[in-house]
Amino acid sequence: MQRLVSPVKRALRLKRAVQEASLVPARLVPAAHRRFSTIPAAPLAKTGSWPKDVGILALEVYFPAQYVDQTDLEKYNQVEAGKYTVGLGQTEMGFCSVQEDINSLCLTVVQRLMERTRLPWDAVGRLEVGTETIIDKSKAVKTVLMELFQDSGNTDIEGIDTTNACYGGTASLFNAANWVESSSWDGVRATHMENAYDFYKPDSNSEYPLVDGKLSIQCYLRALDRCYTLYRQKIQSQWKEAGMDRPFTLDDLQFMIFHTPFCKMVQKSLARLLFNDFLSASREAQSSHYKGLEAFRDLKLEDSYTHRDLDKASLKASLDMFNKKTKASLYLSTHNGNTYTSSLYGCLASLLAQHSAQDLAGSRVGAFSYGSGLAASFFSFKVAQDASPGSPLETLVSSIADLPKRLASRRRVSPEEFSEIMDQREQFYHKVNFSPPGDTSSLFPGTWYLERVDELYRRTYARRAL
Amino acid sequence: MQRLVSPVKRALRLKRAVQEASLVPARLVPAAHRRFSTIPAAPLAKTGSWPKDVGILALEVYFPAQYVDQTDLEKYNQVEAGKYTVGLGQTEMGFCSVQEDINSLCLTVVQRLMERTRLPWDAVGRLEVGTETIIDKSKAVKTVLMELFQDSGNTDIEGIDTTNACYGGTASLFNAANWVESSSWDGVRATHMENAYDFYKPDSNSEYPLVDGKLSIQCYLRALDRCYTLYRQKIQSQWKEAGMDRPFTLDDLQFMIFHTPFCKMVQKSLARLLFNDFLSASREAQSSHYKGLEAFRDLKLEDSYTHRDLDKASLKASLDMFNKKTKASLYLSTHNGNTYTSSLYGCLASLLAQHSAQDLAGSRVGAFSYGSGLAASFFSFKVAQDASPGSPLETLVSSIADLPKRLASRRRVSPEEFSEIMDQREQFYHKVNFSPPGDTSSLFPGTWYLERVDELYRRTYARRAL
Repeated sequence: MQRLVSPVKRALRLKRAVQEASLVPARLVPAAHRRFSTIPAAPLAKTGSWPKDVGILALEVYFPAQYVDQTDLEKYNQVEAGKYTVGLGQTEMGFCSVQEDINSLCLTVVQRLMERTRLPWDAVGRLEVGTETIIDKSKAVKTVLMELFQDSGNTDIEGIDTTNACYGGTASLFNAANWVESSSWDGVRATHMENAYDFYKPDSNSEYPLVDGKLSIQCYLRALDRCYTLYRQKIQSQWKEAGMDRPFTLDDLQFMIFHTPFCKMVQKSLARLLFNDFLSASREAQSSHYKGLEAFRDLKLEDSYTHRDLDKASLKASLDMFNKKTKASLYLSTHNGNTYTSSLYGCLASLLAQHSAQDLAGSRVGAFSYGSGLAASFFSFKVAQDASPGSPLETLVSSIADLPKRLASRRRVSPEEFSEIMDQREQFYHKVNFSPPGDTSSLFPGTWYLERVDELYRRTYARRAL
Repeated sequence: MQRLVSPVKRALRLKRAVQEASLVPARLVPAAHRRFSTIPAAPLAKTGSWPKDVGILALEVYFPAQYVDQTDLEKYNQVEAGKYTVGLGQTEMGFCSVQEDINSLCLTVVQRLMERTRLPWDAVGRLEVGTETIIDKSKAVKTVLMELFQDSGNTDIEGIDTTNACYGGTASLFNAANWVESSSWDGVRATHMENAYDFYKPDSNSEYPLVDGKLSIQCYLRALDRCYTLYRQKIQSQWKEAGMDRPFTLDDLQFMIFHTPFCKMVQKSLARLLFNDFLSASREAQSSHYKGLEAFRDLKLEDSYTHRDLDKASLKASLDMFNKKTKASLYLSTHNGNTYTSSLYGCLASLLAQHSAQDLAGSRVGAFSYGSGLAASFFSFKVAQDASPGSPLETLVSSIADLPKRLASRRRVSPEEFSEIMDQREQFYHKVNFSPPGDTSSLFPGTWYLERVDELYRRTYARRAL
């Protein structure tokens, strides 16, 4: 149960990167970053390259304050002397009481590391947790660790939890090293993470989450505000270095897609971004570009999460923009519902399916990803310029063009049957030694399905013929 | 429940990288890769740099073959007309029957993507799954997907599962893009992943795993063989390009650390690597360098997982090497037991704690990481050359030097008390509305502990004063 928690190594790898950064001429943006900018290539002095010798600068080890001697345990368990001490090569064994869990262990080791190294809390850009101790199926340990960063105001810390038995530490080490070497290390994207209980899955016996609907909407909008503000700051600061001093607005994005718990939430979110633009516009621009919002000029973002008049006015002010930049991306969500982890990418697929390659070519697509608990990022995709037949863009777009046909080929079932199938899911949740009932011919051709769960929970799968 | 599974995008991002790689002069190794090589800097023609325009080349969308109409559902649920269709903006909703689960969904979408794009199965170098649907607390969905790659023989595919509610897809997208941009994209490290049920945690009501001990040891050793073979191939191929034609052996590593389920397993593993070296050595070297192993010259790796005579002979042949290169790394495992995800990094910390900075400077540390299910990697760390007072290496080593003192300050408890505390852990597992019993003064100063789990499973933590 005890852990020498490894995520801490991540934080320190960052420090290495900070030192490396000092080797790069100050304030110059590597060329590779240009693709994140919406302006034409500016005169930048350095081409992107890997930092040298990315590695571990500090390690923090934590173990619990009590142990059981293995000679004592051999006697107590009435096994032959030497079974543990010689056979396994172990003389003592640490263990945790019920006072500690995976969250507390990680809190301890991260705080100790930061205190000992005197690394400023706002210098951390990535922190990832490798663990196989799952106490919540949805909410990452990482989100709990964000509590430690609260006083510093630093919520822009990438990385979440990564899992496969004892391999999680290595996976997160590799991910962190890649991050330091990549352009993301300080490319233009904005993250906001904090510790929240808006939607989570702590009940091991249920497939369903616990949800505080009102809190979840508020968390989503707050994360959206924070990410967008930070994203704009980062881009504007790049622009300034290139000699251009103006605010970034939604006009700089040709399309805007969002994580979609339900479609109306997305329309509200686009309206919210417009309100952000409005608040930071000049008096003149506020009057000329944001019709109907003038009355809300003195409202603060944090006081306006549930403001009916503002909602109404900003939905109206953003309607044309919604129809032009976002509505097409809701195609799959409208016809298939919330797809959770893949929701944002379903929006991207919808956008591609609803536009021609020519329409999309050269455009910039803004993207907001949100996961309760919570972790959120604002970033953008740049669509390739070449839309000619056979180009990568045209190939991608045409590959996705059959979405409407495929959706139309689904079987419409009655609410009664839907309800029965949901009951069946509950009934079989975590059952063993069964083969799922039902006719596999109801699946699309080429679909894999669960064939059997044996008495030891081992799962086997088969594929319906193409 | 239904998903538009996102991991597939990862596979295709790889394809982009393959195309990018064609822009790099064939067979030339970027300079940044040199730090993974054990030879002095060779004359290499290109400095490392980020590939341009890393992005998405293909998308695969899967949705289940049945849906429920939302107007039907409004009537069935006796809610006001328009509640779902207008209020949420949703007209239809797809859903899965019990025939499908997160594994089958991912199998379907990855296979469809590979078939449609005709990407060769052995061209994939990274595949990561972003999900919040946990049906096993330890075994990653990714390991199940390895079934698809079996015929191709490609098991060297990095990336596992990554989790935080709906954010997992974005986290895996970022990780995959970073990987393509980093030197790891084809740096010298070797991974082996496959679908195995050797140790897993499918029982949601238990903190404990299901373990097939014998199978797990065999899986560990097979993964070790596979990773080491591949690692040697990769390094030798680099060497060949630099004009050096000789086998890589353990002599090229000054230290060797392993994931440590128990200490004896590690000693056996080092012996196993020596046997690997022996099998690929020349007849002459077999006789001169590997005393006592000659009799096993014609044995095949795959036929020797449980060969008592070989075990005995190779343990003997590797004893000196074990004492010199590996034993010190087992310090924490010996005194604290198996620490699972952080085990390998506990070994690294032990190694640093047991040697002086001077001893370590300039050395190369081989590392083998293993997680059941299974995912394994063989890679290495290069220790910095500068060991002078105040250098990063000296600072790191001295920061960890208090390990023995800290271990000695733990409280030794009786097996009876240990057993009671374990019972208490079972009793409180997934309980709600409680504060853990026990005196927090038994924790080390500065330790975070679980203060309370409320009736909605929300956890709060407090810290014992430093």
